[in-house]
Amino acid sequence: MSSATPKKTWSQRFESALHPAIAAFNASISFDIELLEYDLLGSEAHAKMLAKTGIITTAEAEQLTQGLAQIRQEYREGQFLPTIDDEDVHFAVEHRLIELVGDVGKKLHTARSRNDQVGTDIRLYLRAQIDTIREQLRVFQQALLDQAERHVDTVIPGYTHLQRAQPLSLAHHLLAYVEMAQRDWERLGDIRHRVNVSPLGCGALAGTPFPIDRAYSAELLRFEGVYRNSLDGVSDRDFAIEFTAAASLINVHLSRLAEEVILWASAEFGFVTLTDTCSTGSSIMPQKKNPDVPELVRGKTGRVFGHLQSLLVMMKGLPMAYNKDLQEDKEPLFDTVKTVQGCLQAMTILLQEGLEFQTDRLAQTVTTDFSNATDVADYLAAKGVPFREAYNLVGKVVRQCLASQKLLKDLSLEEWQALHPAFESDIYEAIAPQQVVAARNSYGGTGFEQVRMALSEAKKRLLVAE
Amino acid sequence: MSSATPKKTWSQRFESALHPAIAAFNASISFDIELLEYDLLGSEAHAKMLAKTGIITTAEAEQLTQGLAQIRQEYREGQFLPTIDDEDVHFAVEHRLIELVGDVGKKLHTARSRNDQVGTDIRLYLRAQIDTIREQLRVFQQALLDQAERHVDTVIPGYTHLQRAQPLSLAHHLLAYVEMAQRDWERLGDIRHRVNVSPLGCGALAGTPFPIDRAYSAELLRFEGVYRNSLDGVSDRDFAIEFTAAASLINVHLSRLAEEVILWASAEFGFVTLTDTCSTGSSIMPQKKNPDVPELVRGKTGRVFGHLQSLLVMMKGLPMAYNKDLQEDKEPLFDTVKTVQGCLQAMTILLQEGLEFQTDRLAQTVTTDFSNATDVADYLAAKGVPFREAYNLVGKVVRQCLASQKLLKDLSLEEWQALHPAFESDIYEAIAPQQVVAARNSYGGTGFEQVRMALSEAKKRLLVAE
Amino acid sequence: MSSATPKKTWSQRFESALHPAIAAFNASISFDIELLEYDLLGSEAHAKMLAKTGIITTAEAEQLTQGLAQIRQEYREGQFLPTIDDEDVHFAVEHRLIELVGDVGKKLHTARSRNDQVGTDIRLYLRAQIDTIREQLRVFQQALLDQAERHVDTVIPGYTHLQRAQPLSLAHHLLAYVEMAQRDWERLGDIRHRVNVSPLGCGALAGTPFPIDRAYSAELLRFEGVYRNSLDGVSDRDFAIEFTAAASLINVHLSRLAEEVILWASAEFGFVTLTDTCSTGSSIMPQKKNPDVPELVRGKTGRVFGHLQSLLVMMKGLPMAYNKDLQEDKEPLFDTVKTVQGCLQAMTILLQEGLEFQTDRLAQTVTTDFSNATDVADYLAAKGVPFREAYNLVGKVVRQCLASQKLLKDLSLEEWQALHPAFESDIYEAIAPQQVVAARNSYGGTGFEQVRMALSEAKKRLLVAE
Amino acid sequence: MSSATPKKTWSQRFESALHPAIAAFNASISFDIELLEYDLLGSEAHAKMLAKTGIITTAEAEQLTQGLAQIRQEYREGQFLPTIDDEDVHFAVEHRLIELVGDVGKKLHTARSRNDQVGTDIRLYLRAQIDTIREQLRVFQQALLDQAERHVDTVIPGYTHLQRAQPLSLAHHLLAYVEMAQRDWERLGDIRHRVNVSPLGCGALAGTPFPIDRAYSAELLRFEGVYRNSLDGVSDRDFAIEFTAAASLINVHLSRLAEEVILWASAEFGFVTLTDTCSTGSSIMPQKKNPDVPELVRGKTGRVFGHLQSLLVMMKGLPMAYNKDLQEDKEPLFDTVKTVQGCLQAMTILLQEGLEFQTDRLAQTVTTDFSNATDVADYLAAKGVPFREAYNLVGKVVRQCLASQKLLKDLSLEEWQALHPAFESDIYEAIAPQQVVAARNSYGGTGFEQVRMALSEAKKRLLVAE
Repeated sequence: MSSATPKKTWSQRFESALHPAIAAFNASISFDIELLEYDLLGSEAHAKMLAKTGIITTAEAEQLTQGLAQIRQEYREGQFLPTIDDEDVHFAVEHRLIELVGDVGKKLHTARSRNDQVGTDIRLYLRAQIDTIREQLRVFQQALLDQAERHVDTVIPGYTHLQRAQPLSLAHHLLAYVEMAQRDWERLGDIRHRVNVSPLGCGALAGTPFPIDRAYSAELLRFEGVYRNSLDGVSDRDFAIEFTAAASLINVHLSRLAEEVILWASAEFGFVTLTDTCSTGSSIMPQKKNPDVPELVRGKTGRVFGHLQSLLVMMKGLPMAYNKDLQEDKEPLFDTVKTVQGCLQAMTILLQEGLEFQTDRLAQTVTTDFSNATDVADYLAAKGVPFREAYNLVGKVVRQCLASQKLLKDLSLEEWQALHPAFESDIYEAIAPQQVVAARNSYGGTGFEQVRMALSEAKKRLLVAE
Repeated sequence: MSSATPKKTWSQRFESALHPAIAAFNASISFDIELLEYDLLGSEAHAKMLAKTGIITTAEAEQLTQGLAQIRQEYREGQFLPTIDDEDVHFAVEHRLIELVGDVGKKLHTARSRNDQVGTDIRLYLRAQIDTIREQLRVFQQALLDQAERHVDTVIPGYTHLQRAQPLSLAHHLLAYVEMAQRDWERLGDIRHRVNVSPLGCGALAGTPFPIDRAYSAELLRFEGVYRNSLDGVSDRDFAIEFTAAASLINVHLSRLAEEVILWASAEFGFVTLTDTCSTGSSIMPQKKNPDVPELVRGKTGRVFGHLQSLLVMMKGLPMAYNKDLQEDKEPLFDTVKTVQGCLQAMTILLQEGLEFQTDRLAQTVTTDFSNATDVADYLAAKGVPFREAYNLVGKVVRQCLASQKLLKDLSLEEWQALHPAFESDIYEAIAPQQVVAARNSYGGTGFEQVRMALSEAKKRLLVAE
Repeated sequence: MSSATPKKTWSQRFESALHPAIAAFNASISFDIELLEYDLLGSEAHAKMLAKTGIITTAEAEQLTQGLAQIRQEYREGQFLPTIDDEDVHFAVEHRLIELVGDVGKKLHTARSRNDQVGTDIRLYLRAQIDTIREQLRVFQQALLDQAERHVDTVIPGYTHLQRAQPLSLAHHLLAYVEMAQRDWERLGDIRHRVNVSPLGCGALAGTPFPIDRAYSAELLRFEGVYRNSLDGVSDRDFAIEFTAAASLINVHLSRLAEEVILWASAEFGFVTLTDTCSTGSSIMPQKKNPDVPELVRGKTGRVFGHLQSLLVMMKGLPMAYNKDLQEDKEPLFDTVKTVQGCLQAMTILLQEGLEFQTDRLAQTVTTDFSNATDVADYLAAKGVPFREAYNLVGKVVRQCLASQKLLKDLSLEEWQALHPAFESDIYEAIAPQQVVAARNSYGGTGFEQVRMALSEAKKRLLVAE
Repeated sequence: MSSATPKKTWSQRFESALHPAIAAFNASISFDIELLEYDLLGSEAHAKMLAKTGIITTAEAEQLTQGLAQIRQEYREGQFLPTIDDEDVHFAVEHRLIELVGDVGKKLHTARSRNDQVGTDIRLYLRAQIDTIREQLRVFQQALLDQAERHVDTVIPGYTHLQRAQPLSLAHHLLAYVEMAQRDWERLGDIRHRVNVSPLGCGALAGTPFPIDRAYSAELLRFEGVYRNSLDGVSDRDFAIEFTAAASLINVHLSRLAEEVILWASAEFGFVTLTDTCSTGSSIMPQKKNPDVPELVRGKTGRVFGHLQSLLVMMKGLPMAYNKDLQEDKEPLFDTVKTVQGCLQAMTILLQEGLEFQTDRLAQTVTTDFSNATDVADYLAAKGVPFREAYNLVGKVVRQCLASQKLLKDLSLEEWQALHPAFESDIYEAIAPQQVVAARNSYGGTGFEQVRMALSEAKKRLLVAE
């Protein structure tokens, strides 16, 4: 839409009206109402810029901004309700403005096109949403850290291939998600810079002959800069795609945690119990607590991926500059925002009040497997037994144990010494889960000392604002 | 949700209520209201089956079906409006039913679970939508055929690589889209058989101990068969994915036609003029008629692809049987239906009343290029000149023409004969666009005779109902 | 590429050669070599058709088919190895043919274009691959049935939300996958009809002036029909997309089974042991058997989804008729074929020799939960206790048991009767897992009787050839 | 794979060998050979770290690094060729190392797991590829700038909705793509920081008991930091996804330019001629120059989108920590790199030597439409005619011209003055395309002055290294 004067105006040459089904097909008011407040902000800044540069008078600008303020109030009070006849939210606002302030309302669109106006609105909208999501990521991280703090000394099996590999501090496990969320937070910070650029003043595609001051309106709207090329300014949707890709990664991370909670809450794992505030049940099977929240989060992951795909496809092969296809940027973007915000909130509540780790079960679990086998080899190696010999021996011990349905800790000292004379009574401590965890004290490892340090560092990082 | 008794019931063991944000996150009422009428249909059939098998009495079944009929009426009259507190449309209906008919309302859910109930609803919904889309495809084909019929003798450039290759009958060009739509129609016919299978009676996952008659309820609902395995019945979403893939192909086809219309409507091509009922304009540039409809159709293509991706991702790696993730099947499916139906309607209207082919421009266009070059070679070959010699000669002629900015038809007979003595005055007819088109009379080719036959066959095919 | 004469030919007007990087960028020989044998088949049929219609002589056709046969032999013996200089496989074959049979080789391309030639090759290729995959699906189903037959009486927990819901016959569980594979098999059968249509004779885009017999060449190649419109014939890639969508569903199903095997093989579930031929281990943790196969299958799922998207995006908005973009159809298609065939083979081997169900563990598992709770209510209902009263009672019993860490079977008859006088000593049998399974004997349910019937029917279905 | 000792070792407990089809299914050597040189680099750094921390001796480290250096040389000389039996590139290197240096070779894997090793390799690989792509983006920008510099004063129609809207400086048009590439360059710069983090020392999942120095090996490999959490370190693939999303945007931009070149090269537009080095032709239609390069670039766009989806799907719902699914990260990533690099190179060559803008045609084009209509209104407004009056008048003028098949410039001064007395003879200059362009001199607009400034700024930006 390269013209933003009211519908009647552009259609004046047209002899017949738009087919009603086509009008409905073209209309965007049902979803772009989401942009209303951002449209008002953008228009206020534009009006002030027009006055500053002398394109309109100060008195006119004041009339306009007062009219826009009144529309905002009417909207918030539910009195201003655009309908399908308004085609889009921008026409709706313009019509109402002219009703309120008269002919001066028509001057608002001077040196502006629908193309740069919509581009401004959507960037203001997305910038605000990114800020909200970054705050939500902080709260999510805090919820993880709170759980982690409670569970530094809780030992949980660590898995590769969903096979028990080595025991871990539960805090270490949870801190992995703090790291993922940290990357999400940083990534959105990077993207915010590319969202926060003003297309206002790019016109329909080529700029404008009016002596506008784009830097000034950008400053009023707290944009970090302005688009340097008008064609690019009206047709760029990189920022929306980049955001949706980042949102996809947030949902990837949440889906991984969701999967783990679902596993942990199963009868077979039994590592967590879900509280009543965060699960649903069955009247006839009261033992059943369905992990609806993580299941829905996992299920919504594809939705965000789908929106990413949708936006990419929309842009593929579009010639310059604005094309109506771009109207299709809004619904995927809005739904991505809503989905990610909803998932983050739900998973945060789940962490805050939905999970009770079953520490007894965990304690019992980590003592009933062979995930301490490597530590036997390390024990021998520390006693001077050659590396390869030690390793071969452990394989042999485990096989024996499997055959006799014993665990390593069940072997008597005699049995140990029969295997190798280097074994002494301290072998039992060496293969106790707590010790097995403690030993992996390399930087970033699960050793308790490392985990406490990581926890403390992570808490500090949460205080970083930018 | 494996239980369908009212919310209060399943939560009775739960000491605290669901967190309000979690309740909102879980709720599906905002979108599954779309299923209401199908839910009523499914419940009516289920009630009748319960009576037929003696699980409830005939009197009870009548009370139930009357209650359901009243809900339908209330809903159609706008008096029954489920809210967010109802969680989902099935609870909403159940609550209202119990209000209307009392305790017998609670018997409706005997031998049924939410899982098979939802599965039934969504299949009934999709079956109806497929039927609508297939009808729309027929109307779309008819619109193409109507245009084709008017333009059998209109010659349009045929392109490969968007380079003019050979002239075509415009009808032939349009018939290509009739063929695509035909495949869409047939494909949806195949898919309909896999949608039209009843999961009713699969229970939560394992079947039921009640002596139900699944074939009977399926028959009442006009299903072609029943799921043979209860786990599969409650967790299968193949039909939704398969439909969305078919919908993606419909949109691929529409996007191709959309792209062509956009090109044709450009000043550079000028092959069509858009009418006022199907385009939007600019007050200041009244010569401009924006092809919003095909642009939006092209832009919406990614949306359908995205939904397909979303559904596939949802299903990836889901263990048996029902998981809450499956609740996420609805919005992508509903929006796919709405998008494809909207695009089909819009493109049909465009064909019916939005396009005026500029036959003068087309006629002039096809006489001003070298797309008849191959026909010179064919001409010579027909006169006995060896194939390769003929071809080499044509390359030479065209190069000469390009150098002297002439077209083939501009060469004098002397010039032709200087090139090769076999040329005679009938060369001019042989390279006239109409003749060039007419010559390609192989089956499926653009020769007018073939096109008339294809048109006639296509019209007959439209009468086929199944 | 609308001309298929050797490279030198089309470039003869061109003054400078193609930039070497551009030549490499354009070349497809590195992957379309996969089509070589199909190209030979297509060319043989084309040659025979040219002779039948008198366009070439029978002697010429024989020379051509003998030359093509020799190329096939050379290729199979590793003596014919096209290189990057050949640009594509079709040029490579044509060059070699001319070397072998001389100038008559140049006649092969009469009345044919690269566009319809490539389209023919890829359909022949895909038809053969579909046939292979359908056979593989049959073998996969057989492997499932073999396991199912062994485990009709093995009881396994049935899950919803990964929470134990109701016990199942393991055979019933496996039969769900037989059903999915059945839909896959049928779906590919439907698609095969749309793949199996001949574009040969569509020419570059418009048909040909030669008196060809498309039905004849189609018949020689066992196509079911011919494209009715030449533009559609050279630019249709629906069949490739439709196949890739079906392949995506196959991988969805395999990924679900893969997920279950991974869960079952975990220490926590312990339902299966992986054999040494189908898992990898760790020298130091010999108890560990990594389920690499199902993990890879699950991981490869996204790959197929990605190819589907890739093909859809390629087609979006492509104007008629052939565009070079279509060259990008091959790699996603070839890799989809390879991936799906590889995954099917690997999962089949896993079922045949990779899984040992731990029946003792399963037997013990199903007796240690509350998944028989509904059956207590059914028991009471059968004794005449009102439905709702029975249900409320069960909820109460389970809560008591949970509080006292007992299972239902651990309650004494006195305890039962204290709850309700209707309980008698047959309650113990009623809630035994075997009985709980047996009771769900509705059609498609897990009742043993139903399962045996389903198994028998499934075996019969496997014998159906079409 | 949590163990990296040779295949024989991990399988020693296993009684039967891996099924050959399963072994082939698991193997990654066919594609991860791409990582060989990065694997050597990572191993060298690891060996040095082991020596620095006293875990092995300096002499041992030297033996190892010499052995690794020799493998590099052998590989580069084509003497070291891993085969399918080597399973993966890491085993292949390890085997060869042990052959070369004997038992000390077995020490290289001390305090390292396959999981952190592979993670290190792939990050080193990707970092190098990102650097290459960023350089390619610079060369691409330079090629755009070179064309832009030649065409500041060339006027080209500017489009919205593919309808001519306002004339533009061709340089301005090209600069839009310079801006897109600039964002691509910056985005990759941001991502590089998140790629350039060392997982080395994370072990299989939990860290290691050895007193390693992760900061040291990271420094040797020029990583900017180390992963702070071992679980995250071995299972994070964000960087690969983030890169693939950025690559998708690069291809979006290239596809847009590709689309424009394809349009421009059509007979209808005729804005560019393709040179012989960058297009292919047809022997029989020598006037035809197929834009294969931009078509392929456009066609390859979906391929990159597909890989992005593939990676996202792979990660969805993966529990901690390493799972075999992650092996599927390589092929999509490698092919994305190859595709983007190939497309960038091809489009750069096209800009450098493939396009000849047809300036005569462009000059003629911009004088034969109504894209100067707004400037008539601006003219009147500047003469004091009220805004709305001026606009209405222009609509009227254009309609009259359309009716009489005249252009605005064809109106006589009398006709102008009949429309409004404010028109004077300077109207002709005001509506000349050059003036129309010049007038839009707002920042970022197409005014020649602005364009020259933008060009100069863009050239400076190209010199920025980071």
